Amino acid sequence: MRVLITGAAGMIGSKLAARLRTDGVLAGRAIGSLILQDIVAPLGAAAADLVRLGDLGAMAAELIALRPDVVFHLAGVVSGEAEADFALGYRVNLDGTRALFDAIRVADYLPRVVYASTTAVFGGPFPEVIGDDFAPVPLSSYGAQKLMGETLLVDYTRRGLMDGVALRLPTICVRPGRANRAASSFFSNIIREPLNGLPADLPVPRDWVHTMASPRAAVRFFLHAAGMDTAAIGPRRALTLPGVAVTVAEQLAALARVAGPEVAALVRDAPDPAVWAIVQTWPKRFAATRARALGFQAEADFDAVLRAYLEDDLPDWRR
Amino acid sequence: MRVLITGAAGMIGSKLAARLRTDGVLAGRAIGSLILQDIVAPLGAAAADLVRLGDLGAMAAELIALRPDVVFHLAGVVSGEAEADFALGYRVNLDGTRALFDAIRVADYLPRVVYASTTAVFGGPFPEVIGDDFAPVPLSSYGAQKLMGETLLVDYTRRGLMDGVALRLPTICVRPGRANRAASSFFSNIIREPLNGLPADLPVPRDWVHTMASPRAAVRFFLHAAGMDTAAIGPRRALTLPGVAVTVAEQLAALARVAGPEVAALVRDAPDPAVWAIVQTWPKRFAATRARALGFQAEADFDAVLRAYLEDDLPDWRR
Repeated sequence: MRVLITGAAGMIGSKLAARLRTDGVLAGRAIGSLILQDIVAPLGAAAADLVRLGDLGAMAAELIALRPDVVFHLAGVVSGEAEADFALGYRVNLDGTRALFDAIRVADYLPRVVYASTTAVFGGPFPEVIGDDFAPVPLSSYGAQKLMGETLLVDYTRRGLMDGVALRLPTICVRPGRANRAASSFFSNIIREPLNGLPADLPVPRDWVHTMASPRAAVRFFLHAAGMDTAAIGPRRALTLPGVAVTVAEQLAALARVAGPEVAALVRDAPDPAVWAIVQTWPKRFAATRARALGFQAEADFDAVLRAYLEDDLPDWRR
Repeated sequence: MRVLITGAAGMIGSKLAARLRTDGVLAGRAIGSLILQDIVAPLGAAAADLVRLGDLGAMAAELIALRPDVVFHLAGVVSGEAEADFALGYRVNLDGTRALFDAIRVADYLPRVVYASTTAVFGGPFPEVIGDDFAPVPLSSYGAQKLMGETLLVDYTRRGLMDGVALRLPTICVRPGRANRAASSFFSNIIREPLNGLPADLPVPRDWVHTMASPRAAVRFFLHAAGMDTAAIGPRRALTLPGVAVTVAEQLAALARVAGPEVAALVRDAPDPAVWAIVQTWPKRFAATRARALGFQAEADFDAVLRAYLEDDLPDWRR
């Protein structure tokens, strides 16, 4: 079988590609070739991979002409960028997604399409726990574009034009690499920096609750969605995924347990009213009842999130 | 002030235009000119009206160059057409709406935009009463396109590019004119045909509950949305509107009360499994709590719906 990953140079895309190369199979079938699309060259591409560089909207037909049996659609600009550049966000996140789905529609075959959506489709005010039937009303252009992508996926799937599943990912933690300027970056920074012996600022109160899943869990979500029986989902093809809902204090307690109290002590309270104002608009917990029933599994606790990071991204870390 | 109506030749559009001509004012301001857009000439246009014929997507910039203070966006292809012709539905309902909103965005002014959405954004399974926070997952391309239009409206409004309100209209009853082939047409047919002395077939059981509002109420909704204080709505700019939730039996009892039992007796039970299969996927009742609190009022009962029809569309009917 052929597998396409759009946005293959991204953090999740490259981890997904690596996992598929290691496994050599997906949904019980041998992977013949891996097609990697992005605007920049994916690191770690194998010689056998078909790398296609360029804007998704412009090359969707070319990619679909290769008849991938499974399409992992991860390409997109992130929330901060979509908010800063209105036209870019709509062009990449909405028009790019529609171009991909339309290429599949006119190609007249039925691939499994697994689409990276986000819990940012939800905008407050929220109930304490967001259930599967809670109406998404985004408070960011990124969330709006992803919700429209979900709506296309649901309609194209209902009409028998593709076999789509949209995954509303929770915040991914621990993000490897350098700190970025996203308001949510501190959830990763307060783990990653201390493990590197560096101090980290905590801009919000320690009792704030947030839902997270590891990059490893995210890859597992995508693999599961590629192989699952979609008839069991029904017409509501956008699934809010589970994660670990913890306070910042619980994150840091896990860090102290796994890495030692001296590591957790590198986190300093540094209240930032601007960040706090944004964070308070975010959801805390998701029921994710349907996704759990359909077999999607996040980590059991934040210790497991931490261990996944150490094993996958810091293999040389002292133990 | 200038007022633009897209889809001005449609049933609601033409009634809205007539009402605006009669009132001469909207939201407390005198109407200087009425701009009427459609693909066919609106009947009843006045000499002073600016009639613009053509596809909305192609002429959006030209319409917005006239700087309408209020935009009533009703243009679109109906559900049956959007389902039968995939490309047409997306081009008119999604691309046309986006072209209109983008023309406003680049024109750099802040009109009030009142958008005709639909309760068809909801797809089952439903709770017995659909609350304002129930997640819309459309089961038709029409519903999907309207939901995407709402999502654009919410995002463009949040970003300060326009001042939008999306109105999720319930089924409009009694539709004047001839019967059409929409599965919902019987809700109007069983009233309209007997009042014309003609028999009418009832394809569903008499205990089926459905929510309806009169064309007069729909016009009132649009006028109210044009003049209301939108700051009171908050970021969730799509409002599920109230209507009269009645069984078919209650519709016919009202018909007997208002027009006489011999008129109601012209309705014949004619079960149609195909129609019934579709109707059973439809929602029954809406809480419409937010819309009611914001001052949107439907009829109090189906007798009032009937009287509105007789007064507005059958003024010569015997009384």
